[in-house]
Amino acid sequence: MNTFGRNFRVTTFGESHGAATGVVIDGCPPGFKISEEDIQVFLDKRRPGQSDLVTPRKEADTVQILSGVFEGKTLGTPVCLLIQNTSMISTDYDELKEVFRPGHADRGYYQKYGIRDHRGGGRSSGRETAARVAAGAVARCYLEKKGIFINGTLTSVHGEKTQEGIEKAIREARDGGDSVGGVVSLVVSGCPHGLGDPVFGKLDAMIAFAMMGIGGVKAVEIGSGVQASSMKGSEHNDQMTDHGYLSNNAGGILGGISSGQDILVRLSIKPTPSIRSQQHTVDINGMDRIISVKGRHDPCIAVRIVPVAEAMMALVLMDAFLEQRKIVPDCRQEP
Amino acid sequence: MNTFGRNFRVTTFGESHGAATGVVIDGCPPGFKISEEDIQVFLDKRRPGQSDLVTPRKEADTVQILSGVFEGKTLGTPVCLLIQNTSMISTDYDELKEVFRPGHADRGYYQKYGIRDHRGGGRSSGRETAARVAAGAVARCYLEKKGIFINGTLTSVHGEKTQEGIEKAIREARDGGDSVGGVVSLVVSGCPHGLGDPVFGKLDAMIAFAMMGIGGVKAVEIGSGVQASSMKGSEHNDQMTDHGYLSNNAGGILGGISSGQDILVRLSIKPTPSIRSQQHTVDINGMDRIISVKGRHDPCIAVRIVPVAEAMMALVLMDAFLEQRKIVPDCRQEP
Amino acid sequence: MNTFGRNFRVTTFGESHGAATGVVIDGCPPGFKISEEDIQVFLDKRRPGQSDLVTPRKEADTVQILSGVFEGKTLGTPVCLLIQNTSMISTDYDELKEVFRPGHADRGYYQKYGIRDHRGGGRSSGRETAARVAAGAVARCYLEKKGIFINGTLTSVHGEKTQEGIEKAIREARDGGDSVGGVVSLVVSGCPHGLGDPVFGKLDAMIAFAMMGIGGVKAVEIGSGVQASSMKGSEHNDQMTDHGYLSNNAGGILGGISSGQDILVRLSIKPTPSIRSQQHTVDINGMDRIISVKGRHDPCIAVRIVPVAEAMMALVLMDAFLEQRKIVPDCRQEP
Amino acid sequence: MNTFGRNFRVTTFGESHGAATGVVIDGCPPGFKISEEDIQVFLDKRRPGQSDLVTPRKEADTVQILSGVFEGKTLGTPVCLLIQNTSMISTDYDELKEVFRPGHADRGYYQKYGIRDHRGGGRSSGRETAARVAAGAVARCYLEKKGIFINGTLTSVHGEKTQEGIEKAIREARDGGDSVGGVVSLVVSGCPHGLGDPVFGKLDAMIAFAMMGIGGVKAVEIGSGVQASSMKGSEHNDQMTDHGYLSNNAGGILGGISSGQDILVRLSIKPTPSIRSQQHTVDINGMDRIISVKGRHDPCIAVRIVPVAEAMMALVLMDAFLEQRKIVPDCRQEP
Repeated sequence: MNTFGRNFRVTTFGESHGAATGVVIDGCPPGFKISEEDIQVFLDKRRPGQSDLVTPRKEADTVQILSGVFEGKTLGTPVCLLIQNTSMISTDYDELKEVFRPGHADRGYYQKYGIRDHRGGGRSSGRETAARVAAGAVARCYLEKKGIFINGTLTSVHGEKTQEGIEKAIREARDGGDSVGGVVSLVVSGCPHGLGDPVFGKLDAMIAFAMMGIGGVKAVEIGSGVQASSMKGSEHNDQMTDHGYLSNNAGGILGGISSGQDILVRLSIKPTPSIRSQQHTVDINGMDRIISVKGRHDPCIAVRIVPVAEAMMALVLMDAFLEQRKIVPDCRQEP
Repeated sequence: MNTFGRNFRVTTFGESHGAATGVVIDGCPPGFKISEEDIQVFLDKRRPGQSDLVTPRKEADTVQILSGVFEGKTLGTPVCLLIQNTSMISTDYDELKEVFRPGHADRGYYQKYGIRDHRGGGRSSGRETAARVAAGAVARCYLEKKGIFINGTLTSVHGEKTQEGIEKAIREARDGGDSVGGVVSLVVSGCPHGLGDPVFGKLDAMIAFAMMGIGGVKAVEIGSGVQASSMKGSEHNDQMTDHGYLSNNAGGILGGISSGQDILVRLSIKPTPSIRSQQHTVDINGMDRIISVKGRHDPCIAVRIVPVAEAMMALVLMDAFLEQRKIVPDCRQEP
Repeated sequence: MNTFGRNFRVTTFGESHGAATGVVIDGCPPGFKISEEDIQVFLDKRRPGQSDLVTPRKEADTVQILSGVFEGKTLGTPVCLLIQNTSMISTDYDELKEVFRPGHADRGYYQKYGIRDHRGGGRSSGRETAARVAAGAVARCYLEKKGIFINGTLTSVHGEKTQEGIEKAIREARDGGDSVGGVVSLVVSGCPHGLGDPVFGKLDAMIAFAMMGIGGVKAVEIGSGVQASSMKGSEHNDQMTDHGYLSNNAGGILGGISSGQDILVRLSIKPTPSIRSQQHTVDINGMDRIISVKGRHDPCIAVRIVPVAEAMMALVLMDAFLEQRKIVPDCRQEP
Repeated sequence: MNTFGRNFRVTTFGESHGAATGVVIDGCPPGFKISEEDIQVFLDKRRPGQSDLVTPRKEADTVQILSGVFEGKTLGTPVCLLIQNTSMISTDYDELKEVFRPGHADRGYYQKYGIRDHRGGGRSSGRETAARVAAGAVARCYLEKKGIFINGTLTSVHGEKTQEGIEKAIREARDGGDSVGGVVSLVVSGCPHGLGDPVFGKLDAMIAFAMMGIGGVKAVEIGSGVQASSMKGSEHNDQMTDHGYLSNNAGGILGGISSGQDILVRLSIKPTPSIRSQQHTVDINGMDRIISVKGRHDPCIAVRIVPVAEAMMALVLMDAFLEQRKIVPDCRQEP
C-alpha cells in the first residue's frame, strides 16, 4: 500500500539509505507546464540543515523528472520523479541492527515482514516524505492555477504558541538530548464547493487518512475539532445568509463535501522518538537493552512536517478535484 | 465511493426514506457461521427509541440475509444484508424541500449533484449507518473468534465526564430544543501485532479515515492524541522491556503497524445539527430564511455513534487482518 | 471480486437458488431518468422460456429499484436493483450435492472455498448474469442519450451461419440430449474517440476482461481477431484519408484508445456443459461416478449470452466514458 | 491506468525516448531472494538486435534495482526497477511530429490527450514492455519456487507453422518492406487449483485482460478457444476420473478458477504497423498525406511478444496466488 489516491495516483518508493527515493504519479492531467525547478522549490522547504532548529544533516534532495513530461509539459502519462540518496552515513546505524528504538517502527517492520532495513529507518524513515513533497508539488502547481492555495504553519510546540516560545522549546529539547511535540495548522483557501464523495470518500475522511498517514501525527482535527464535543448545536451550526456563512466550525466541509469556505485542519504531532536520553528497550531476541539513539535527528519533527502536510493536502484535493469532474456535466444538465 | 475496504469490501446503499437500506459485503471469508440473529444484536444497539436520551423514532431495523450464506455458513460469495425502511414520516420533511438546514449536508449534496432526496437527509442521513453496523456485525463475529474485541464508550458530553453529568447535559439540551456534542472512546483488545500497511495503508490512517467518515466526527485521536503535541520524547516514547511496553502513548500502533498493545482511539463529535432553535439559513434560490428544524431528532448523536464507531473499527481490522494473510507465509520462511 | 468497473462500479450478489439476485451500482451519474420499466425491457430479453431454442424454465425476473432514484431520476447515490428469485426447483439438484458436473465450476468452488451451494450452480449459475443485464440497462440508457449504441447478434452455432442452420443445430442438440457452441458478435456504433486508458486500462483489454468473464466464453477477438496472425502489415493497417479510415481491422480501437470507428468484437462460446448424455466424473470424495445432468437447460448458452455481452459492453463503455471526463478539460486547454 | 494487479501491483513509467523506463512493484512478498542478474536474464530475451529476425536496434536494457531489496532479499517494500534509455535516435522520428502512422496509437494519443511524445511512439512504444518483463521476472522467480512454470512459443507466422516456414515468412516481409502477424502460445504447468476469483476476477478474464493489453494482440483464446463455438457439449466437456481429467478443452480454468491442469492460452498478433510501403494517412491538421515509415522496426512483433506474454502471465498468476492466500486458512477450517 504505497499508493495514494484514486485519480491522481501517487506511488512512492525508496529506503532512506537505499539508492534512491522517488515517486510515480499516474493520472496527472496532460498539457500542464511543470519543471524540475517548480518541484525543487517545495523540496527545498522540506530539506534539513536549513536552521539550527532542525537536523544538521545535509541532503541535496535534487529532483529529476524521468518521464511523463515532454517539452516542458505533462503528457498525461506517468510522471516519475527521482531523488538520488546522498549524505548517508549508514554506519551511524550499525548498533541498531539488532535493537529496536522505542517510539519507532523498527519492531513493527521486523514483526510484520520478518526482515527490515535498519539503516536510518529504511522505508519508515521521514525521508520517504521527500517523495510525497515532490508529488505534492506537481499537484500544488496545478491547483494554484485553479485558485486553490494551501498554507501550513507550525502553531505550537510543547504548548508554546509564540515564535519565541517555540524556538526556545526546540533548542532546550535539542540541548538536553530530548525532543518536543507540536501542532501544525493548515488552511486551504479558494477550494470550490462540491469536492468530496459520500459515504466512504468524504473529503474530511480523506484528509484524516492523509494526515494520520504522516509519521508522528497522533490527532487530526477538522474545524472545531476536539472543541466540538463541548459545544451546543446552537453554537456549533454555521448559520447561512445570502452573504455567506456566519462561522466556520465545520472547517469548510459538511457531510463530507467542501462548502466553499476555507478548509481548516489541525495536526498534533508527537515528539521525535530518536533521543539521546537513555531508554529501556529490547533487541530482536527479546532481551532487555538500554538505548541512547545517536545520529543527527530533528529535535521537533513538527517543524519539518509542515511542507509534508501541505503536500498531502494537495494530493487529497487534486484527487477530489479530478473525481468531481466525472459528474459535473450531469449536475448541470437540464431536468 | 460507497465502498469501504480492499479485502473485506463493504458497499452500502439506501436513502433514509427510500425503500430499503442495505449493504453488500464482498470478500467475506467462506465457511464461517453467521445468522440474522447474530447481526440483529448489533443493530438493536444502534436502534433509536430505546431510552429518553435518544430520538423517540421507532425503527424496526430488521435485517435479512439475501445472499452469501448457505445452511448457516458463509459461502465466500457476496453477503447482501437488507433492512427494509419503515416508520418513515416523509411529510415531516416537506418544508425542507427548498431550505438547507445549517450544519447539514443538504446544501452540499444539492451543489454537488444538482439533485437531492430531501426526506430525512436521504443518503446523508444517520440511517445509512445501520448498514455499516450490519456489516460490522459480520466482521465482529469473525474477529471475536480470533480473540479480537472492540469496545466503545461515551466518555464525555458537553464537557461532562460522569454518567450523571452526561445524562443531565443531554436532557437539558433536549428540553431546551438544543443539542450537545460528546466524546466516544474505543479500545481494541487482543489485536495481534503486524496489522497495517506502510506507507499509505497505515492502520492508524485507516482508522482515522473510517472514523472521520462517520457523520459528525470532527477529531480523531490515537493514543496520546492532541496531548502528544505538548509532550517530550522522553515522556512520550513507550519504552520496552522483556515484560512488554511500559506505557501506551502510541495507542497500540507504531509506524502504522499494530504493536499488540490495546488500540486506543478517541472521537470528538459535534452536537446534532437538527435543533428546534431558530437559525439563519438560505433556500435553494439563495434567499435568506429562518429555520427551526422539526422532527424527532437525537439531542446528542454521540450516544448513537458508539455502535457505529465499533462497527467501523471492525471493518478496518477485518480488512487489515485479511491483508496481512497475504504476506504471513513469506515472513516466516527460512532465510 | 464481485465488482466491475472503476467509475461506474457494479457489484452483483446472489446465488441462483438463494432469496434474491441483485446489483449495486456506485458512481451512477446524478439527474438521469431511469425507471423499473427501462430496466425490465433488457431483463426480458435475457429471460428464459421465450422460445423452443432456450430452456423452458420460467423466471419472472422482475426488477425492483431499492435506492438511488428519487422522483424518477438518479440521485448520484448507489442504485440497488433487486430481483427476487422464483421458480426454483432445488430438488432437481439434490443428486449434485456430492457429484461434480463436467465442464462446470462445481469442483472449482468446492476446492477454492471448501464449501458451495450446489443448487443450480449457486453463485456460478448463469442466473448471476441477470444482475449484470440490469446494471447494463442503466448504462445503456445513459449511453444511448450520448448516441452510443450496442448491438449483439448470434452469428454462428456449431459452425452454421444462417438462421435456419443455427436453429436446426440447436434443436438437434436439444433433442439428442447434447448441446452446441456458438459465436456472438458485437458492434458498437457512435462511440466517440478517446475512450480507453493506456497502458493497463486499454479499451480492448477491458472488453476482453469483461467478455472472458462471462461464463462459457473461450475466445475474444477484436476487429481482425485471429485473422490478424495470417495477415501482412500492408493489408492490416487501416489507412486514413480526410474522409476517414479505409478499413477497420483495428475493430475501432488503436493503442487501447477508441478511434471513433465502430467497435467490433467476437466471442466464441462453448456448448452448455449440462447435458443428458452420460459422462465420467468424480464426487467430493474423489470416487469415479457416471453422471447424466437432469434439469431444464439451454441447449446453446450462446443464445442467451447475447444480452449479457451487450450489458458487459455497456459497463465497459460507461466506465471509460466517465474516466475520460477527468482529462477532457485539460486536453482542450490552450498551450 | 498504468498499474496492473491488486496485490502484486505493478506500475510502469517511461516514454521510449525519455530519460528512462521503469517499474515500481508494490506488494512484493518480503524475504525473497532477487538480484539484478535474475531480472536481466529475462530482459535479455526481450532485447532487440539478437538475430536477423528482429530489429537491428541495439538497446542495452540494463536493469538497476533502486529500492525494496536489502542484502539480496526483498523487504516487502516497493521494488523500483530502472532501465536507462540509450541508443535512441530521435531524429528518425522528426517527420512523424505532425503525421499519424496507420495502425499506430499516434492519432489516439493526440486526440485523447491533446499532446503526445512523437519520438518512437512515446509511451505507446513497445519499449514500455521492457518494464513489464522486468516486473514479470520478479514474479517468475517467486512462482518458480512454488513449482509454477510459464512457457511461451511462437507457433505460427503468417499462417506458417514450422520453424523454417516462420523464418522464411519473416525474412520475406522484412526484405519487402512489409511485416507479418503471428500466434504466440502459452502453457503454464504446475499451477495449483483454486486461483482466480468469481465473478469479476476470473482467472481467464484476468489473463484476457493482461494479454489483450499487450500492443498488437487482436485475439485471446483459452483452451479450445474459437474451436469451442463449433463443438458439442459431449465433445467439449472435460470428463473426470480418479486419475484426472480426460481432456483439457477448458485450458486449465473452469468457472474462472484454475483446475490444476495446464493453463493453455493462445494470442493472435497483428503485423507490425511500421512498414516501409507507402500508405495513406492524415496529419494533425486532418490533411491527406502519404507515409513510408523509416526506422529500424521488427518485421514481426509476435517474435518479441513471447517474453512479454510470459511476463504478463506471471503477473496475473502472482496476483491470483497472493489473493488466494487471504481465504486459504478459512477453506481448511473445520466445520
